[in-house]
Amino acid sequence: MKKKAVILAGGQGSRFWPMSRIERPKQFLALGTSEESLLQSTVKRVEKIVGKGNVIVVASNDYVEEILKHTPEVTIIEEPMAKNTAPCIGLAASLIAKEDPETVLLVFPADHAVEGSEGFEKIFNLACEVASKEDVLVTIGMQPTKPNTAYGYIQREEKPFFQNEVYRVKRFYEKPSIERAQQYVENKDFYWNSGMFVWRASSILRAIETHVPQLSVGLQKIQKAYGTAEYTTVLKAEFLAAEAVSIDLGVMEHAKNVVVIPADCFSWNDVGSWDAWAEQFKADKDKNVLPANAISIDSTECVVLSNIERSYVVRTDVVRAENKERLIALVGLENIFVIDTDDALLICHKDKAQEVKKVVEKLKVMGKTAYL
Amino acid sequence: MKKKAVILAGGQGSRFWPMSRIERPKQFLALGTSEESLLQSTVKRVEKIVGKGNVIVVASNDYVEEILKHTPEVTIIEEPMAKNTAPCIGLAASLIAKEDPETVLLVFPADHAVEGSEGFEKIFNLACEVASKEDVLVTIGMQPTKPNTAYGYIQREEKPFFQNEVYRVKRFYEKPSIERAQQYVENKDFYWNSGMFVWRASSILRAIETHVPQLSVGLQKIQKAYGTAEYTTVLKAEFLAAEAVSIDLGVMEHAKNVVVIPADCFSWNDVGSWDAWAEQFKADKDKNVLPANAISIDSTECVVLSNIERSYVVRTDVVRAENKERLIALVGLENIFVIDTDDALLICHKDKAQEVKKVVEKLKVMGKTAYL
Repeated sequence: MKKKAVILAGGQGSRFWPMSRIERPKQFLALGTSEESLLQSTVKRVEKIVGKGNVIVVASNDYVEEILKHTPEVTIIEEPMAKNTAPCIGLAASLIAKEDPETVLLVFPADHAVEGSEGFEKIFNLACEVASKEDVLVTIGMQPTKPNTAYGYIQREEKPFFQNEVYRVKRFYEKPSIERAQQYVENKDFYWNSGMFVWRASSILRAIETHVPQLSVGLQKIQKAYGTAEYTTVLKAEFLAAEAVSIDLGVMEHAKNVVVIPADCFSWNDVGSWDAWAEQFKADKDKNVLPANAISIDSTECVVLSNIERSYVVRTDVVRAENKERLIALVGLENIFVIDTDDALLICHKDKAQEVKKVVEKLKVMGKTAYL
Repeated sequence: MKKKAVILAGGQGSRFWPMSRIERPKQFLALGTSEESLLQSTVKRVEKIVGKGNVIVVASNDYVEEILKHTPEVTIIEEPMAKNTAPCIGLAASLIAKEDPETVLLVFPADHAVEGSEGFEKIFNLACEVASKEDVLVTIGMQPTKPNTAYGYIQREEKPFFQNEVYRVKRFYEKPSIERAQQYVENKDFYWNSGMFVWRASSILRAIETHVPQLSVGLQKIQKAYGTAEYTTVLKAEFLAAEAVSIDLGVMEHAKNVVVIPADCFSWNDVGSWDAWAEQFKADKDKNVLPANAISIDSTECVVLSNIERSYVVRTDVVRAENKERLIALVGLENIFVIDTDDALLICHKDKAQEVKKVVEKLKVMGKTAYL
């Protein structure tokens, strides 16, 4: 079985401001539990399944240099512009299919965090097996642990379809209300849509042809031009024309051959915002997640992250680093996140972590591009 | 009438950490609405009443150099060690009385903020008049605007004692419960004890003799030694022996000749903690007090103070100032105070501003002296 991992690294997420910036989006930050960037961890993780040399990263030209700094051994497919996940996945599938349409593709966002490599490998080996044997689109479903309204949900059929571990999908549900999410958590047939997929190139291209026919036409032109002098021009033109639609909305929600593998043997976090990020870390006895240079008084469920390595003195004409860490003190706080960087400090209520992107929008409106 | 202002500058308040430090306590910080330190503003304010050359600052030797940097023209009386306000005020009164016991003394904490100089002068001129004519201890009472539990309260007699504007004091009340404080605010006979006093040197020394006789004996010895070679030795010995008691607890609460002048023609703030400090400033439409380099999203009643002038990059071997301000963003916060300094960042709930001193205590216990 020929396998290729396709890593989607085009994200420009602004929810991790001030750590993330236009030139340094989330996938390039060490937002997991290790010191590696999310992209590095993702590549390492999937290399174990597909083997070195079989990892493809899809991203815009702007990030190519940065990607190669993080993961020099990957193959890069450049997307001419950000067009959401359907065109991006379709592009990778088309180019790979030109060589061998029966290649099994494992699709991963570059910016999620996973713990538990054994379980991860087990699930994806199974996913590859079913995808190679059947014309199905395999999704990986995570057992919901709380009524998260930022995730999509997958409902499975009751009885397994393959090996007692793979189920046909009954329905997809987009980000639900809190009441709906609560019902989904209580119902054992519902899973979080992890955004990780496995399918043969031919299967996903067929599904795109059925459900996003216009994109399919474009992809066929791109595939045809691939390897010729016209490739870049055709790619650009077809991407420009392509509708920016997600693979979930464009394909998965309509396709009849979607299956789900419930993955309970590894932990997964989409690192979608500062509050999701914080869930990866063990809290202290007061339920805070604090670095060594922070102290707390009467504070609970707070999170501090600082990338300022030392304290400093900046006065009109003097910049002097002091030989001590910067200290962060919390007094009487609940559910407060503090993200302290060189040129910007964010303080955010946990429940409003999704609104950090509004800061970025406001900075744009104010013309404060230096902070973007 | 001979007048001298006695400014008490011995405070080591830790409630303004991280702005205040052991070597730079509150009185030396620009915590008012101007760019002057609280000490500078206090000296300027009282010079208008007593005249230049008649301002005495009482403080420990540790602060002499700093005091002269801020206010080079004052006379300094050094206290050998911090012993609260009764010994400190008694010392100043004894030394001044050696020259002329009928000198009227105006006593001010160095670290309060006042707005409205005309009203201030009017009240203190009246206070000097009554203190010079009667053997009374004059307190300045501020009209309570809210049930503050951090202040002492003064209850006056119903009918005026002097010029329809000076009342005898019925009773002092120490920091009350919130219920009591609410009653005091509703009762028009109650005032906040501003900690500002006016009396003749002879009057306060007589009151100390009556109510803190042991201190009085020590002060007489110091007065006798003043101007001789033994002064420093005697001062040190007597201060070492003196009980550390406040003028309120030791004298004012017991004396029968205390009067109060209700001061409604200037505004006063004891700048006792970050929340009191914030009350001096006009809030924006969301009730926040923010500097130009802060932006807020869905946040209300927050306060930001930063003394970091520019942003900077500190990496292992590089310190580089960037040509932009440091940016502070608040998202979804209520009643949060952010104090951002070079080597330490404080984030504190408004209701817990009094607990900032616990941070300082914890730093001491942890041996983190560099941040004290």
